[in-house]
Amino acid sequence: MDKKIGAPAPEWQVQQWFNVEQPPSLAALRGKVVVLEAFQMLCPGCVMHGLPQAQRVYQAFPRSQVAVIGLHTVFEHHAAMTPVSLEAFLYEYRLSFPVGVDLPDGRDGIPQTMRAYGMQGTPTLVLIDAFGNVRNQHLGQISDLLLGAQIMELILESGAPSQ
Amino acid sequence: MDKKIGAPAPEWQVQQWFNVEQPPSLAALRGKVVVLEAFQMLCPGCVMHGLPQAQRVYQAFPRSQVAVIGLHTVFEHHAAMTPVSLEAFLYEYRLSFPVGVDLPDGRDGIPQTMRAYGMQGTPTLVLIDAFGNVRNQHLGQISDLLLGAQIMELILESGAPSQ
Amino acid sequence: MDKKIGAPAPEWQVQQWFNVEQPPSLAALRGKVVVLEAFQMLCPGCVMHGLPQAQRVYQAFPRSQVAVIGLHTVFEHHAAMTPVSLEAFLYEYRLSFPVGVDLPDGRDGIPQTMRAYGMQGTPTLVLIDAFGNVRNQHLGQISDLLLGAQIMELILESGAPSQ
Amino acid sequence: MDKKIGAPAPEWQVQQWFNVEQPPSLAALRGKVVVLEAFQMLCPGCVMHGLPQAQRVYQAFPRSQVAVIGLHTVFEHHAAMTPVSLEAFLYEYRLSFPVGVDLPDGRDGIPQTMRAYGMQGTPTLVLIDAFGNVRNQHLGQISDLLLGAQIMELILESGAPSQ
Repeated sequence: MDKKIGAPAPEWQVQQWFNVEQPPSLAALRGKVVVLEAFQMLCPGCVMHGLPQAQRVYQAFPRSQVAVIGLHTVFEHHAAMTPVSLEAFLYEYRLSFPVGVDLPDGRDGIPQTMRAYGMQGTPTLVLIDAFGNVRNQHLGQISDLLLGAQIMELILESGAPSQ
Repeated sequence: MDKKIGAPAPEWQVQQWFNVEQPPSLAALRGKVVVLEAFQMLCPGCVMHGLPQAQRVYQAFPRSQVAVIGLHTVFEHHAAMTPVSLEAFLYEYRLSFPVGVDLPDGRDGIPQTMRAYGMQGTPTLVLIDAFGNVRNQHLGQISDLLLGAQIMELILESGAPSQ
Repeated sequence: MDKKIGAPAPEWQVQQWFNVEQPPSLAALRGKVVVLEAFQMLCPGCVMHGLPQAQRVYQAFPRSQVAVIGLHTVFEHHAAMTPVSLEAFLYEYRLSFPVGVDLPDGRDGIPQTMRAYGMQGTPTLVLIDAFGNVRNQHLGQISDLLLGAQIMELILESGAPSQ
Repeated sequence: MDKKIGAPAPEWQVQQWFNVEQPPSLAALRGKVVVLEAFQMLCPGCVMHGLPQAQRVYQAFPRSQVAVIGLHTVFEHHAAMTPVSLEAFLYEYRLSFPVGVDLPDGRDGIPQTMRAYGMQGTPTLVLIDAFGNVRNQHLGQISDLLLGAQIMELILESGAPSQ
């Protein structure tokens, strides 16, 4: 568990967006539950589990209540996972939710949003409530059953009717 | 969808219980969300999907808020799926939630609880809210993501804190 | 590993056959490679792995070269796995290769063919060459890759063209 | 099916090798069965099926009899799948067999070995016998059962004892 649970989610620092017309900001998503999936395109656990799960969430919940955002948090093999590679990856894996490239630190280290959230690796799933607070931050696998329950809890808290 | 959604769940008619000390009744479970998994032990969709999912629900949610009940609704191959076979099945598949044998109609037809709920086959998953009303009745597969969300919605409705 | 590898396979003792017109005998299958899948219908490893694999073998290789035979070797929960239950199981799981019921020992112990082969549990896969000798006897899971290779080795040994 | 079945396999044209000390040549592998797995690192069918299967073959058969060779045949998204990205991919997915980068055609089209073999896409699995002839060339998925059988057939043809 992370010490930031309950605290306001840091605004993300993004170099480039895919699958969007307008760059989404955390501030503009206030009122919606946000599922933030931090990943690296060459991380097998992200490809096999985290990203398919994020895509399922994107398809299962109404866009008016839940926003799914991918964040490409490259902290290793920087030259291997450039935005041009990421773009082909998103296309080939048919990932259709918005994905931002986390802003590099300029020294091939941990990128800036990843650092601000205190993430320890990938995949990391962050649940942000409709008021902009981090409510869960999970490294590794989380079950669909518990994730669905947590998302619904945050939806109902927000005062939105459940569907 | 079933015409009974929203109506009071019929009390189950059970011939014999497994995995319980006291026979559970729907009335006695008032205040909890009830996940009723209707199955046949020789139905591949039950064995591969419905029953493992029910076991996951049983392990994921607090017993004080969610009750998982299996119901063996034998409507075909009656001689093949007697209680003695069911008992060995439950043991071999390590299913540990309470399971009742739906009361036969006496003519090798649709058993009585299955008929009262208007179920069309197996597996059928029924969600009953804390006030005893049927809120969902689903034949076939339902995703863990949506099931988790629906269970949480009913938990929160009941006034219980989510955990 | 089993001490009987290389020795003549004992003729099977079968009480009742399913999915056949004529009871198959080991002697009559001389000239073909025989894949014998010993299972119990309530053994999860048989249902999840052994039997689907046997069905794949049945579909992948020509019937003129490879015979797949199921053997229901009930050594526990005898009352739960009677032939009437087995028949419904085979129908519901769409298993179409010949299946014999191993002859009980009359004392609810290990049935006679299972004992003659020295099997330790289920699933057990036995490979018998075209000359009637046991060439492999494996308790638990075996990979499709190695099984395919072993079957082909025995096919080619028999002098049959590979397809 | 491909018109080249039975014909001598074209020598591969490789720009760069990974997971080798000495660049392997087809000529030097005469006497062994060669399993050539042509893939692209961002092709989901390669990542989910073809490459894990190649790794299983690499682990299941003796190195003295079967050589597994990966060939990175980039015919689309060229800038996204450079050797530096491939190297990180091989490391992250723990692929340990030799992998060569197919020689580009210089115009971001179909690379040279892929063209010489007449491959239509990825994954393509090519089976080459111990005498250097193409014996199977398969686009898409092939079952482990049939692949194991085909490899064993070629091993035995070569005159090698099966293990």
